[in-house]
Amino acid sequence: MSTAEEIAKAAKTAFEESQLVPAEERVTALRHIRAALEANKATILAANVVDVHAAKFEVAAGRMEESLLSRLDLNKGDKWESMLQGITDVAELPDPTGIVSYAKELDDGLELYRVSCPIGVLLVIFEARPEVVVNIAALAIKSGNAAILKGGKESNETTQLLAQAIAAGLSKSSLPSTYVQTIQTRAEVSSLLSLDQYIDLVIPRGSNSLVRNIQNNTRIPVMGHADGLCSVYLDESADPEKAVRIVVDSKTDYPSACNSTETLLIHESLLSSLWPTVAQALISAKVRLLCDPPTLSAIESLSLPSSLVSPSTLDAYTTEHLTLTLAVAAVPSLAHAIRHINAHSSHHTDSIVTESRAAAAAFVRGVDSAGTFVNASTRFADGFRYGFGTEVGISTGRIHARGPVGLEGLVSYKYVLSGTGKAGHVVGEFGVGEGKRRFTHRLIEEKRLPF
Amino acid sequence: MSTAEEIAKAAKTAFEESQLVPAEERVTALRHIRAALEANKATILAANVVDVHAAKFEVAAGRMEESLLSRLDLNKGDKWESMLQGITDVAELPDPTGIVSYAKELDDGLELYRVSCPIGVLLVIFEARPEVVVNIAALAIKSGNAAILKGGKESNETTQLLAQAIAAGLSKSSLPSTYVQTIQTRAEVSSLLSLDQYIDLVIPRGSNSLVRNIQNNTRIPVMGHADGLCSVYLDESADPEKAVRIVVDSKTDYPSACNSTETLLIHESLLSSLWPTVAQALISAKVRLLCDPPTLSAIESLSLPSSLVSPSTLDAYTTEHLTLTLAVAAVPSLAHAIRHINAHSSHHTDSIVTESRAAAAAFVRGVDSAGTFVNASTRFADGFRYGFGTEVGISTGRIHARGPVGLEGLVSYKYVLSGTGKAGHVVGEFGVGEGKRRFTHRLIEEKRLPF
Repeated sequence: MSTAEEIAKAAKTAFEESQLVPAEERVTALRHIRAALEANKATILAANVVDVHAAKFEVAAGRMEESLLSRLDLNKGDKWESMLQGITDVAELPDPTGIVSYAKELDDGLELYRVSCPIGVLLVIFEARPEVVVNIAALAIKSGNAAILKGGKESNETTQLLAQAIAAGLSKSSLPSTYVQTIQTRAEVSSLLSLDQYIDLVIPRGSNSLVRNIQNNTRIPVMGHADGLCSVYLDESADPEKAVRIVVDSKTDYPSACNSTETLLIHESLLSSLWPTVAQALISAKVRLLCDPPTLSAIESLSLPSSLVSPSTLDAYTTEHLTLTLAVAAVPSLAHAIRHINAHSSHHTDSIVTESRAAAAAFVRGVDSAGTFVNASTRFADGFRYGFGTEVGISTGRIHARGPVGLEGLVSYKYVLSGTGKAGHVVGEFGVGEGKRRFTHRLIEEKRLPF
Repeated sequence: MSTAEEIAKAAKTAFEESQLVPAEERVTALRHIRAALEANKATILAANVVDVHAAKFEVAAGRMEESLLSRLDLNKGDKWESMLQGITDVAELPDPTGIVSYAKELDDGLELYRVSCPIGVLLVIFEARPEVVVNIAALAIKSGNAAILKGGKESNETTQLLAQAIAAGLSKSSLPSTYVQTIQTRAEVSSLLSLDQYIDLVIPRGSNSLVRNIQNNTRIPVMGHADGLCSVYLDESADPEKAVRIVVDSKTDYPSACNSTETLLIHESLLSSLWPTVAQALISAKVRLLCDPPTLSAIESLSLPSSLVSPSTLDAYTTEHLTLTLAVAAVPSLAHAIRHINAHSSHHTDSIVTESRAAAAAFVRGVDSAGTFVNASTRFADGFRYGFGTEVGISTGRIHARGPVGLEGLVSYKYVLSGTGKAGHVVGEFGVGEGKRRFTHRLIEEKRLPF
């Protein structure tokens, strides 16, 4: 049994050694991991049955939530096949490393390149769903990062076997065997969070409280996915058909997703015209409306079912319902809508329905969220829909990566300075005086590392 | 007197309101700030004399380090003029916001744009040098961020007047008056570090212990500039002239800068050939050499002054000397050099002197530092030399920004999704079944927001 420090150190060493391994080996490793999983399918799914069985006891005893059971179950539906397909999909994505994003000649023969490279060692902590271990391992390997993974204790039997298959796949490539490691205990996580000399990024995938707890206990940067509290605003000039379709889709397409809408803001000029139509459509879709006084009184005459329409409390506008519940409020202007969203939303994704170009421009600038949409459902906020091919997660932070994060969220960059001058390049020769060299700072068109 | 929470809230409000102010106003504000400083030059410099006078007492009483005095003194040399010129330089740089870095059509009439935007509210904490308040205020304003600034208490009289001039300049633009605020006490910093709902990034500019102390006490992301422990490695195939020039420049051009070299690694095949020549050149430049046994015995016959040549201890290789002192060690191979650097350097900037393309390629990939250089002095690691026009600082972290950070280190991005379809865009229409829409994911060539 290794200590947390040994695990972290082994990860850093594996990362450093892997830097000289060609990127194609990472793809080879992914293919072997898929094969190892396929070869051990029966054993892994049997272990998963054991996990699910134990979890049912916990649920019956009231020590675990029922919703956890379906997330734990790898035998369910096409989960196993999706997991395997995910590995192939990630393997086939373009390599996110080695891409030159800035190239400048500083002087004759002295060329600067900013090139994308892996971040280093990732510590990924997630809950319940065992397939995440495979998913994240694939993303880490593809992007050239070493990883330490910690799943929920309720999926221990399954994740141990998944980890063995990952190790078996890695061993058939020239990547180091400690490139991906798994740990089991919270005590290990706790120790690892203090080892910022070895670990470069922590990615918690789970509840908001998990994310905050980790942020409170480490100096290591955290790429967290917090709440999804999205809104739709119906502007004065909103087109009625667009309004109905976008509001209904944003709320009902998949209510438990983080990009579902939780709040509907309506320009007060629409209270007796568009709003009743939208309300009818929402009620038909079985949405429960929590309304402020103006929006409530505007639909009183419709005699909607009282089980689906009720007055809102203030906390309705700061709650991530994740069910068919929608908080509704009237606002006197676009500026008020923007202020409401900035104060109450989780800066995830917010949408305006408008026919006014000026209103659209003000909304996308004024709303301080990762996604600001015009005449489109908030449900589009997603890495696959954005065309990234895969999704590491959705970040509500503003540093490093914001919004849906693709593989490029797992890379950093470094500067490579290449000198080909006859005598070696020194700073002492540059300056403003006579006989001093000046920097040329000429952009290099061909963005390719010379090595 | 406002509380820390009121200050933070005012900063967030100012940031949000400023999003609808045209970017040109930020340039206008900078010009007025420069004018306000010029108009109050005499008063500000007199206040600075008071600060310096008080600091001299502290130094005499042994409560302050002497080196602080020169950093505090704004009357010295061309410091005042450089400070003013810095404002103009920053004002004239291209706007780092509003730049589209990814544009994709998701479906007919549905276009996604990733556009750069300010981060939000910056909390900047620095020590001693009062001109930093103006420097950082200019960078924050240019990049569209609101800022809260805390200088060292020894420069209080000066920074208060500088802050007044900044406020006076801002008041002549349409930016909010609380766009840049200054605070005086550590207690305020302490309170602000817990307000992650208002503050988006902390930038400490000062000692390593200041940076670590802040990282330990906040959930807010920290963009820190830690140690600068740079190395030069002389490869087997190093050209002698390049070796001498690059080693001497890296060590002696400005020894107290973070991009100066602290460690010299030498391939053991060079111990009796190139190394004595390099050692002679370093001794002539008054560099004190701390040598491991092989490099020490290789130059014993030269009878170099014993005051400048002595055996190294292990900690010599992990010390940021910042003086004319250089730790020297022999390594048996390039792989050993890379391992030594990854284990001992601060991941800032490291350089190889080599005539081998293969060695250069391995070094720039294998060394895990923000800058990996080939046949060039480590002293080139600098935002101005890299062609950024200005420098926010140098980051030894790998998240968000790495190495010398220009204005683009102060921006984030958001996704703008623009729907122009007749009926509004909804996710429910997409899928794999019959009659379902597919995403087109077509790259848009013209990278410009439609609003």
